[in-house]
Amino acid sequence: MNQIASEKVELAEKFSLIDKYWSPKIVGELNGQYVKLAKFKGEFVWHQHDNEDELFLVVKGVLKIKLSDRELTLREGDFAVIPRGVQHLPIADEEVQVLMFEPKSTINTGEVTNELTTDCEWI
Amino acid sequence: MNQIASEKVELAEKFSLIDKYWSPKIVGELNGQYVKLAKFKGEFVWHQHDNEDELFLVVKGVLKIKLSDRELTLREGDFAVIPRGVQHLPIADEEVQVLMFEPKSTINTGEVTNELTTDCEWI
Repeated sequence: MNQIASEKVELAEKFSLIDKYWSPKIVGELNGQYVKLAKFKGEFVWHQHDNEDELFLVVKGVLKIKLSDRELTLREGDFAVIPRGVQHLPIADEEVQVLMFEPKSTINTGEVTNELTTDCEWI
Repeated sequence: MNQIASEKVELAEKFSLIDKYWSPKIVGELNGQYVKLAKFKGEFVWHQHDNEDELFLVVKGVLKIKLSDRELTLREGDFAVIPRGVQHLPIADEEVQVLMFEPKSTINTGEVTNELTTDCEWI
């Protein structure tokens, strides 16, 4: 039997359930990967994921991602893949809604553990 | 060195390059998975993927996915995961723009081979 149901997921409805910044929630699972949604506001923490590539797709707002040598500016309908081992710093001057796609093993703060480190729950 | 560049991808720009229905194009790669974009119009073919779960996220338009026992209607900002082994039939009454996540091994027509079967190229 399949563990994954073929059900419709409405991003807008799921985002309305998120009331905390920098705390990704799981909304889908496939092929050992999670689909996560998060709201960001402010500046996160420099980190990297040693074993996971990470995709950020902006659903609403503007997300800046600082890299060691430059900065990406993602607007609604833009995405970027941050490869494993690449240091990055997400920044949102205003609230941004982001869809992420990453392996189930991914920890939000990568190799860093601090007060922003959080477990991921389904919503 | 990382094979995957940290570059911004604009969905709208990529969709403007697609001039054929039912022919997914690759726009991103991470963790052994591809991010693909496709335009659908009309009715596809009943098929299943024996070893791959498949995600459909509607970027523009309406996508219906017939399953054996029911039908999903996905509007802009909705997604669904079709688990491996589940027969499905995508239908688009009008043109729809769809983002897909799936393993690199995925063939668009699953276990079926016909005139709709196509290799995937990067755009």
